[in-house]
Amino acid sequence: MADNEQTADLGFARVDLDRERRTGDPEVVYAEGKAPEQVVAILRRLHEEHPTRAVLATRVSAEAADLVATKLPTAVHHADARAVTLGPLPTSQGRVCVVAAGTTDGPVAAEAALTAQVHGAGVERITDVGVAGIHRLMAVRDRLEAADCLIVVAGMEGALPSVVGGLVGVPMIGVPTSVGYGASFGGLAALLAMLNSCAPGVTVVNIDNGYGAGVAAARIARRARGGAQ
Amino acid sequence: MADNEQTADLGFARVDLDRERRTGDPEVVYAEGKAPEQVVAILRRLHEEHPTRAVLATRVSAEAADLVATKLPTAVHHADARAVTLGPLPTSQGRVCVVAAGTTDGPVAAEAALTAQVHGAGVERITDVGVAGIHRLMAVRDRLEAADCLIVVAGMEGALPSVVGGLVGVPMIGVPTSVGYGASFGGLAALLAMLNSCAPGVTVVNIDNGYGAGVAAARIARRARGGAQ
Amino acid sequence: MADNEQTADLGFARVDLDRERRTGDPEVVYAEGKAPEQVVAILRRLHEEHPTRAVLATRVSAEAADLVATKLPTAVHHADARAVTLGPLPTSQGRVCVVAAGTTDGPVAAEAALTAQVHGAGVERITDVGVAGIHRLMAVRDRLEAADCLIVVAGMEGALPSVVGGLVGVPMIGVPTSVGYGASFGGLAALLAMLNSCAPGVTVVNIDNGYGAGVAAARIARRARGGAQ
Amino acid sequence: MADNEQTADLGFARVDLDRERRTGDPEVVYAEGKAPEQVVAILRRLHEEHPTRAVLATRVSAEAADLVATKLPTAVHHADARAVTLGPLPTSQGRVCVVAAGTTDGPVAAEAALTAQVHGAGVERITDVGVAGIHRLMAVRDRLEAADCLIVVAGMEGALPSVVGGLVGVPMIGVPTSVGYGASFGGLAALLAMLNSCAPGVTVVNIDNGYGAGVAAARIARRARGGAQ
Amino acid sequence: MADNEQTADLGFARVDLDRERRTGDPEVVYAEGKAPEQVVAILRRLHEEHPTRAVLATRVSAEAADLVATKLPTAVHHADARAVTLGPLPTSQGRVCVVAAGTTDGPVAAEAALTAQVHGAGVERITDVGVAGIHRLMAVRDRLEAADCLIVVAGMEGALPSVVGGLVGVPMIGVPTSVGYGASFGGLAALLAMLNSCAPGVTVVNIDNGYGAGVAAARIARRARGGAQ
Amino acid sequence: MADNEQTADLGFARVDLDRERRTGDPEVVYAEGKAPEQVVAILRRLHEEHPTRAVLATRVSAEAADLVATKLPTAVHHADARAVTLGPLPTSQGRVCVVAAGTTDGPVAAEAALTAQVHGAGVERITDVGVAGIHRLMAVRDRLEAADCLIVVAGMEGALPSVVGGLVGVPMIGVPTSVGYGASFGGLAALLAMLNSCAPGVTVVNIDNGYGAGVAAARIARRARGGAQ
Amino acid sequence: MADNEQTADLGFARVDLDRERRTGDPEVVYAEGKAPEQVVAILRRLHEEHPTRAVLATRVSAEAADLVATKLPTAVHHADARAVTLGPLPTSQGRVCVVAAGTTDGPVAAEAALTAQVHGAGVERITDVGVAGIHRLMAVRDRLEAADCLIVVAGMEGALPSVVGGLVGVPMIGVPTSVGYGASFGGLAALLAMLNSCAPGVTVVNIDNGYGAGVAAARIARRARGGAQ
Amino acid sequence: MADNEQTADLGFARVDLDRERRTGDPEVVYAEGKAPEQVVAILRRLHEEHPTRAVLATRVSAEAADLVATKLPTAVHHADARAVTLGPLPTSQGRVCVVAAGTTDGPVAAEAALTAQVHGAGVERITDVGVAGIHRLMAVRDRLEAADCLIVVAGMEGALPSVVGGLVGVPMIGVPTSVGYGASFGGLAALLAMLNSCAPGVTVVNIDNGYGAGVAAARIARRARGGAQ
Repeated sequence: MADNEQTADLGFARVDLDRERRTGDPEVVYAEGKAPEQVVAILRRLHEEHPTRAVLATRVSAEAADLVATKLPTAVHHADARAVTLGPLPTSQGRVCVVAAGTTDGPVAAEAALTAQVHGAGVERITDVGVAGIHRLMAVRDRLEAADCLIVVAGMEGALPSVVGGLVGVPMIGVPTSVGYGASFGGLAALLAMLNSCAPGVTVVNIDNGYGAGVAAARIARRARGGAQ
Repeated sequence: MADNEQTADLGFARVDLDRERRTGDPEVVYAEGKAPEQVVAILRRLHEEHPTRAVLATRVSAEAADLVATKLPTAVHHADARAVTLGPLPTSQGRVCVVAAGTTDGPVAAEAALTAQVHGAGVERITDVGVAGIHRLMAVRDRLEAADCLIVVAGMEGALPSVVGGLVGVPMIGVPTSVGYGASFGGLAALLAMLNSCAPGVTVVNIDNGYGAGVAAARIARRARGGAQ
Repeated sequence: MADNEQTADLGFARVDLDRERRTGDPEVVYAEGKAPEQVVAILRRLHEEHPTRAVLATRVSAEAADLVATKLPTAVHHADARAVTLGPLPTSQGRVCVVAAGTTDGPVAAEAALTAQVHGAGVERITDVGVAGIHRLMAVRDRLEAADCLIVVAGMEGALPSVVGGLVGVPMIGVPTSVGYGASFGGLAALLAMLNSCAPGVTVVNIDNGYGAGVAAARIARRARGGAQ
Repeated sequence: MADNEQTADLGFARVDLDRERRTGDPEVVYAEGKAPEQVVAILRRLHEEHPTRAVLATRVSAEAADLVATKLPTAVHHADARAVTLGPLPTSQGRVCVVAAGTTDGPVAAEAALTAQVHGAGVERITDVGVAGIHRLMAVRDRLEAADCLIVVAGMEGALPSVVGGLVGVPMIGVPTSVGYGASFGGLAALLAMLNSCAPGVTVVNIDNGYGAGVAAARIARRARGGAQ
Repeated sequence: MADNEQTADLGFARVDLDRERRTGDPEVVYAEGKAPEQVVAILRRLHEEHPTRAVLATRVSAEAADLVATKLPTAVHHADARAVTLGPLPTSQGRVCVVAAGTTDGPVAAEAALTAQVHGAGVERITDVGVAGIHRLMAVRDRLEAADCLIVVAGMEGALPSVVGGLVGVPMIGVPTSVGYGASFGGLAALLAMLNSCAPGVTVVNIDNGYGAGVAAARIARRARGGAQ
Repeated sequence: MADNEQTADLGFARVDLDRERRTGDPEVVYAEGKAPEQVVAILRRLHEEHPTRAVLATRVSAEAADLVATKLPTAVHHADARAVTLGPLPTSQGRVCVVAAGTTDGPVAAEAALTAQVHGAGVERITDVGVAGIHRLMAVRDRLEAADCLIVVAGMEGALPSVVGGLVGVPMIGVPTSVGYGASFGGLAALLAMLNSCAPGVTVVNIDNGYGAGVAAARIARRARGGAQ
Repeated sequence: MADNEQTADLGFARVDLDRERRTGDPEVVYAEGKAPEQVVAILRRLHEEHPTRAVLATRVSAEAADLVATKLPTAVHHADARAVTLGPLPTSQGRVCVVAAGTTDGPVAAEAALTAQVHGAGVERITDVGVAGIHRLMAVRDRLEAADCLIVVAGMEGALPSVVGGLVGVPMIGVPTSVGYGASFGGLAALLAMLNSCAPGVTVVNIDNGYGAGVAAARIARRARGGAQ
Repeated sequence: MADNEQTADLGFARVDLDRERRTGDPEVVYAEGKAPEQVVAILRRLHEEHPTRAVLATRVSAEAADLVATKLPTAVHHADARAVTLGPLPTSQGRVCVVAAGTTDGPVAAEAALTAQVHGAGVERITDVGVAGIHRLMAVRDRLEAADCLIVVAGMEGALPSVVGGLVGVPMIGVPTSVGYGASFGGLAALLAMLNSCAPGVTVVNIDNGYGAGVAAARIARRARGGAQ
């Protein structure tokens, strides 16, 4: 199948070149389960098509990151977020605040924050404000209220969105993480807790899905400031 | 415990009178599992405290609705949404579009729509646009794109948010419903599908939780129009 | 099999008459799934054996409660706790504080409170202090700290024990309830949340098991005051 | 036990030599969990018995593939399908169309396609037509309609069979894959979605079971052209 | 929304009038969860649009069946299949054989058989041939082999498709039923067994989904005889 | 704690020296999760105590087997069963027949067979008689009927016990194995199938628990011949 | 299909008349989900075929039991076991001992006991010997040891088979019951506990499957006394 | 964010310096998922803040333990508990008795025991007293009764707390472990068993959560002796 305006055929994948027109979002490569060579090829093809804005690759293995560094020297490796960007980040509109319960939730929070930036939102991060030390959370309440959208990242019992949701009425996206053991069942406990939150208005994404939360939050934050959508 | 500015003690419940100041949202009564008399008492107390804006009761049984009609004659029973409102609805800001896959998803969609209205958003509804008849969905694409926030309600395989999410980049909240049988496991199949959506930016609420989706969507839509939050 | 010192054979059940000597606890009848006549017969037999202290029956149906009222007129029906006691309550030692997140958690909290009393502890109750209104919880912190053991009852996302456990270091027992719907899976979400609590020292009992929590808390509270064990 | 017409005893396995007569299908070796030497021995024995038609081995590890290459030089290794064939492929009857949602679903789709070929069907493949880019799917609708049987391979939310099933009335077999993470639970989300498809006539095989789908599709396609069954 | 060629708007539902053109299948109403009046209205509207061929309603409650009998006297109630047809059945092409393991699997088997007939296939039924009495199955092997497609219905351990699949190479669709108790978990055990069948080529539909199996089987059988598709 | 007649204290474990008197069974070491040195120490201690009969160690890793070979040269390593015996096997009473569905079920079947021997039963093995080739099973019916107890080992859909149980009335123990993938969920599908068997009298042990099946079968077979129990 | 020696066709069911010859067991009707008229018809047909030995019907509803009493006056209703027998019970061989943990496990224990009797074993019952009162169990150890096979019935945590299995080496079948609530998940907790018993030689049947345990135990007990099998 | 009295900001984590004042417990580092350098940094910072009492790190990997040994030479590595302490242990108050069912439960029991010590309780350990050898448990009954709090550690069927709970009335915390295989589902079977214990007063912590049990038990034991809390 030959290239056309909407898709490019790389042999192993038909790349969607039209996503921004449809959804307003940049192109993204989910690198998990793809060979390093495939990651490089897709990044390159998308960058050629859209040289003026960033392309994002998430869940980039160390091997793929090394190959990207060699083959695409202008790419930036965001190690804490396990991600790569290629091309200039957009001007930011609105503000997303990413709140994480514990140190070990860091990689998921970093992926959410970077994704929101690549999708056009300004980002602030607040770290290590778990529910078992509620005074830390109280101390940052003003910053929570000032955001256009909150991303709340938590593993184990996943209670942080409920507590934050009782403090402020900002749109909020909960991200359960697989941090925990035993009856956390790989993040299932946190996921169920967030789905059952007694705080109204909490929405949820898949376990460890910082990327999805970042996309959703950026869309909300950009709109909150009347920006192009 | 005596009444104070923040809570009112009804004997069987301490009613939160301060929620609007904290989160910008109106007061809501989750009526399931409460006696009809309790529903009436809480509605009355909240209405006395906030006579100028609507109080919402969700999951109202037929028995409770009857007692409300007798005891609180100015209340409005929204039978399709299994809900009651007491007091004037707010002026609407922004537009929430509630999309439902099938006829049987109707009550959940109605709860979502009413909740969004009570929380200050304008609401439009689109019905019966399941993924197995994709042409129906294509026909309403413009209306989807014009919304400030989408609520997509679907049972069975829960695929509608993925398809809608590939068409437009509007903030979207998926609501899985318990419509289905056998291996739908009371809505679990639809919930898992939405959590695993390949369309980026889909967020999810609990099974049948039209209320939660309505709150979240109204917050997003109100902000998109620069309204008071 | 004839009666002996340790057991009484009622035909349909061999009643344990020796439990107090072994464990220091009174006799209890779990009435669910037993015919009203059986409940009466076991209560009567245990009361005859131990006339000077209370016998407790839990999960008593309305039918069984009616028959008990007729056949055992000195018995007391605790309707909120779905329980019956027969015989004088013990002098209380120590203080158990039962904290409940919402109104609908009431029956489980009442069962826990009554059970703790029957097992020799003083009891205080705090109601409707869910995590989505954290200010209510802060207001009762002193009462939490003054207790010898806390029982924290919560359905839905089950986050309350984590928040309470971050405030005070009192021994605490979480009781998940089946309050919720959809992905609460009959209390499973709350149970998993409590098991994964990031607050150290939270222990947990079965879903809706107010009785078990009451027994455990009373044992702890009685010891805290150096009472007979 | 000595050899007879129906089975051959290799010591570690009794090989079924009679399958084609009973079911019309060729012999197949499921190589997972078998030692490379065992794979070679079974392939050789089946090939000796049926030299004029292909024997198929699936789930062949790299180690087993290497040993096969050394010991059975006429065997063909299909790396993308993790499979080996030995002996000539049959003349094809009818047409199976294998549709895959994403790049990472490739190995399962390849196994399905090769299996259908070995079982006597012609095969066409369509790649990377996920539901989040519905225009790609629309563009290939004619090819879908022209097939005798469709195999639709998808991970994550597994929605592709529902959308395809709403477009065409061709017999269809959905293959959920383990592509995904978190609440995909190793393919469970996709499996449940396909079982609950609102498009009528979708049938499903086990997670990642390209082989099973290929067998079923070939049987259907061969019959559709009136071929020997 | 006004009627157009593709959909009819009944107020509570938008009815798909175009399905046959797209998929070759007749119109079907899934009656579960719909009010009897709605069932009647949809049946009537579809029949008006397509008076020359049958419309099928499945999962019809006794109440709905009674109302249908009153309002649509030409409709036929198939009590064993809990279904209603309105309009003439099509000429049959090909032969579907419906095999059921036990007496209690009867309603699901009947739904499958009727659905296949409405979708244009000839149907034969074989009853009560469970795996624990394998001689019964052996006695009907010829009839199994003569079919164009098999539907194999079984609850409990769901082993029948594996045994049948080892005997004949006819395309086969397994239907797990919710017949069983305890660790059958509402048909989950049978579903898992069929998905893991060691007999190649077994495909599966949802628990109790006789309708889905009937649609799929009819499509396969019609094609096997070269009929219009 | 000093040694006494019933237990020996090895520092890291208190070894039960009295099991035979209580249950008639030999001593067994479950080696999984134990250090090789611990396995050797426990085997040695038990052998010293009971030099005239065999001690069995199951789930012996390669490392532990090597150390046993060095330190306890009279021990026998049964590699196919991943087990070690030390001391003379007992005279066999009765006959256990171990039937396995597929080649990959071999290790579990071997563990069952060896365990039955160590526990005093004679053992016969039948291999590779899966339900998808029912003629193989029919060919060995006489051998099945001649046994005192059957152990039926199967993974995937776990249907073999149902089919065998319909052929003969011999006491039977089903052993589900973790052979399979995807929706076999590590043996859960086979376990559920066996628990729901429509053949009466099938009992089941844990997934891959050849040891437990061997113990149970030997007890049954020994009694069937009136041996010492 | 006409009657032959092996099956009788009743229209709605093909009745197996040959089971005893194959497996040595009497005919049994599983009445759940069958209409009362069907239960009567099958019982009558089987009794006509085998007038000299008992036919058993299990899970007989009150309605079916009433109809049986009217239509088959010589039938015996065993209300505690929810079962009916028709025809003379066999002479008993060997002894099965049925042990139940609690009063509420009674119906399952009764079904197991009656089934064992109908299948030719002598039966003894021991009631109310739960693990939380271990002294009761110790008191009956001799009776346990004297049995040819034990059936141990327990709900909740299902620990009784482990404790009994540590006391005696008699063949044992555990029957988990659905007695419990919350995280017992309808008997799943007890089932898993029995499958994971640390006491060797415990085998298990489905939740509440007293019938299956009775069949298996009778086969074992009959053999232990060298009876006809 | 600068340091203040309550938290210290290490860049990658905000360390809670105020926990003892709030809850009376020492500072603890959960080392799993943290880099060795992070473990060292947090331990050092907490030790600087609180030089006169022990800091505890749990789930310390071998790599982290090695780095701690190098960088913090006064730290003590408790290899059996996979833990490190830094600073002097407190004077002990009260007595916690840690009971373990099997050798392989050792690491969890050791973690529980060390944690209780660090949290100020005296500790006694009893090992290898599984329910399948009930005589071992009977022999230590006096020691169980003399404790202020019991921690009962068990994998597999998790029955030990039920049996111990029937013997003595001491406050008890059950710790299910992931010891087991197959249908133990990583400790789920033991967890469910303990939650469903028929012995009243058993409370439970997460699978393998020796730490949580140790904290809870120490709080109970310290209070039992009237110590500072």
